[in-house]
Amino acid sequence: MNTRRNFIKNTAIVGVGVSVVPNMAFGNIVGSDKLKLAFIGVGGRGMSHLNNSLRRKDVEITAVCDIDPTALANALNKIDKAGFIKPKTFGKNDYDYRNLLNDKEVDAVIISTPWLWHTRMTKDAMLANVYAGVEVSAANTMEECWDLVNTHEKTGTHMMILENVNYRRDVLAVLNMVKQNVFGELVHFRCGYQHDLRNVKFTNGTEFGKDAKGEARWRTQHSLLRNGDVYPTHGIGPIAAMCDINRGNRFTSLTSSASKSIGLNNYIVKNGGEDHSNAKIKWKQGDVITTTIETSNGETIIVTHDCNLPRPYSLGFRVQGANGLWEVDGNRIYIEGKSKSHRWDVADEWLKKYDHPLWKKYGEYASGSGHGGMDFFVLNAFVESAKQNIAPPLDAYDAAAWSSITPLSEQSIANNGEPQDFPDFTRGNWIKRKPYNWIKDTY
Amino acid sequence: MNTRRNFIKNTAIVGVGVSVVPNMAFGNIVGSDKLKLAFIGVGGRGMSHLNNSLRRKDVEITAVCDIDPTALANALNKIDKAGFIKPKTFGKNDYDYRNLLNDKEVDAVIISTPWLWHTRMTKDAMLANVYAGVEVSAANTMEECWDLVNTHEKTGTHMMILENVNYRRDVLAVLNMVKQNVFGELVHFRCGYQHDLRNVKFTNGTEFGKDAKGEARWRTQHSLLRNGDVYPTHGIGPIAAMCDINRGNRFTSLTSSASKSIGLNNYIVKNGGEDHSNAKIKWKQGDVITTTIETSNGETIIVTHDCNLPRPYSLGFRVQGANGLWEVDGNRIYIEGKSKSHRWDVADEWLKKYDHPLWKKYGEYASGSGHGGMDFFVLNAFVESAKQNIAPPLDAYDAAAWSSITPLSEQSIANNGEPQDFPDFTRGNWIKRKPYNWIKDTY
Repeated sequence: MNTRRNFIKNTAIVGVGVSVVPNMAFGNIVGSDKLKLAFIGVGGRGMSHLNNSLRRKDVEITAVCDIDPTALANALNKIDKAGFIKPKTFGKNDYDYRNLLNDKEVDAVIISTPWLWHTRMTKDAMLANVYAGVEVSAANTMEECWDLVNTHEKTGTHMMILENVNYRRDVLAVLNMVKQNVFGELVHFRCGYQHDLRNVKFTNGTEFGKDAKGEARWRTQHSLLRNGDVYPTHGIGPIAAMCDINRGNRFTSLTSSASKSIGLNNYIVKNGGEDHSNAKIKWKQGDVITTTIETSNGETIIVTHDCNLPRPYSLGFRVQGANGLWEVDGNRIYIEGKSKSHRWDVADEWLKKYDHPLWKKYGEYASGSGHGGMDFFVLNAFVESAKQNIAPPLDAYDAAAWSSITPLSEQSIANNGEPQDFPDFTRGNWIKRKPYNWIKDTY
Repeated sequence: MNTRRNFIKNTAIVGVGVSVVPNMAFGNIVGSDKLKLAFIGVGGRGMSHLNNSLRRKDVEITAVCDIDPTALANALNKIDKAGFIKPKTFGKNDYDYRNLLNDKEVDAVIISTPWLWHTRMTKDAMLANVYAGVEVSAANTMEECWDLVNTHEKTGTHMMILENVNYRRDVLAVLNMVKQNVFGELVHFRCGYQHDLRNVKFTNGTEFGKDAKGEARWRTQHSLLRNGDVYPTHGIGPIAAMCDINRGNRFTSLTSSASKSIGLNNYIVKNGGEDHSNAKIKWKQGDVITTTIETSNGETIIVTHDCNLPRPYSLGFRVQGANGLWEVDGNRIYIEGKSKSHRWDVADEWLKKYDHPLWKKYGEYASGSGHGGMDFFVLNAFVESAKQNIAPPLDAYDAAAWSSITPLSEQSIANNGEPQDFPDFTRGNWIKRKPYNWIKDTY
């Protein structure tokens, strides 16, 4: 245990019950108690986290790393305008982030980089005893999933997967309903990522790779070479919280099927013509990927990945139990004995009634934070957990279990839908780990 | 070929193009040209077909079979009131239906009996050279699926699976959109049977089996002993028509997963108390069964069976292609370039625009026929096909392929989700069989 972490821990203990809540966005805190927060990656996503951090009074921004000088300059500008002290900067090469992590003025780090960097940076952070928050998805391969768990266990350092959808207002209201047993015993779930990303995957309709812009520089390559659900956590994160995965329940196996792949080729041809050089490319990723997960408690979960075709956005949630169900598509809830027989209620009434304590308290403040407010809450959970140096709500085991859907779905698809067993990342401890206390108004 | 069938064929040829359409519900026809129609099973479902037949001027009801004397008496009463000639009656034992099939005054038969009788009766009908219409699902086991195909091929007699949902107004409008390429190349489908059947499966909330009433006498036993999708055709029938299964495309494999089974036990306990003898029963059928089918054309299809939990009815259709998608849940359609970017249209406008010729022509007349009108159309397709003695729209290969989902899903679930290959019931002919012409206004 290094001194840095213990220092945080001690100040946190002093503050418990007195300063934790007010320390947050609205409170006052003496300089030395502030969380020394660093950022690796300040592109679109990292900059959003940075902006939200600059609204807080309980953090200092001590270091920022990006290999893109423009992104770095933008970040410094924002920090300066917010009246924060100028941080150290890093980014002279791909591995300069390690110098950031070894800086003694860094307690915690938020990692918002291309997917292939997530695990190695998170692992390096934990090895440097820096409390790590990593954007989704946390890992790309099964080995990386184990890396996260093994490094956490070896170092004792915490990490959090920064899954913002776990903090969406409707999701937290439904989680509240789940915990209050409104749905009864849970049976079945649906979720997924159904988002037309074609204009994210291509610049000017046809370009991707190093000459393109934004995520098209790297994200598109995953669609080119991998046939599997490469982005499962926006869907599975909220469901995993509802059914206490790794805390009395666990994923046991999955099967996965991929449809044909035509969406990206169509898009290139439409925007660049049949003779465009990219129109000859064969894309491995099926346009709609369907994964069915079984849990040790006997629930089933359908996870969908649908990002290459024209369609309005939907995460497609369904939460179904012995008493009824919520479906986000159609915005509807049915609870036996409460709803009119065989008739859907408009979900709004239920979601309002069971609005989560966090949203009741901070909803108005959060609304300016991005993605409808949920970005405030996920950052808040990270900062509050890091300040206390305690396990975050979404930890290394969650990051590993959720992210492992990617390699398992690839493996299943490559083998004609053969079921794949999930590793037990808790090494059996899921049977004694207690459910996380989701229903509180602090973080 | 027996004379009966050839007689029908010849009269049909004479009438082609002149009398086929007007012969239907609204036309006049001389007595000898009428289809001699028989019924095996005149319980709830059979009686509905009988009532709709009695509205037609192109059929005589020549024979009725039911082992329940009350059902038989009700049927005779209806027939008499409609001014039809009194039919012969059968039902003195379980196999008296064979005497009906061997009666020379029977050209075609509608079979609406408990599931375990469907295949054997349909097979016997074809062996007796009687044009057979069978209620859904057509077969319970893989052997029965082959029985349907083998008997059809051996005898040359046709059979039709009477899947009424194929004729639902929204389904036919979307089929029309599919055939006019509105969705573009097809990629993904969802469908299923999501219907709270608890009050069908139990009389007085707790009773099933021989002392119960209606379908609770026999249907519930399938929930008790079978863990699989025992009722796939309301969902898969319409989708199979849209993607030309057995006609240029075919089902290749599936995986299936079952959730825990708690719904039926909860229902018994709620209605009969924990001490009720039926409260000790262990139900094999998972409450939500998810089957993912892959096709030779690279589409995926999710089929859901969800009949033991409280929920409003939905068949959960989605039809998704290169240009957009229809979702019945939420009643919405998105077509790129037509809909506002990233915004759903209310489906109604599209469904109205693409209303199927059959519904435009007969919708008003059909509306009184049951299940919102679709029962008229499925009966009409059967009668018109039988009158001409031609292959029906939904034939033995369809019946076999759709019904085979049941044994394959059972097998997959029993093996932890192992993929199961579909037999090719067409023996390779799917590659040269032409798509059925669905878009016409006759039947």
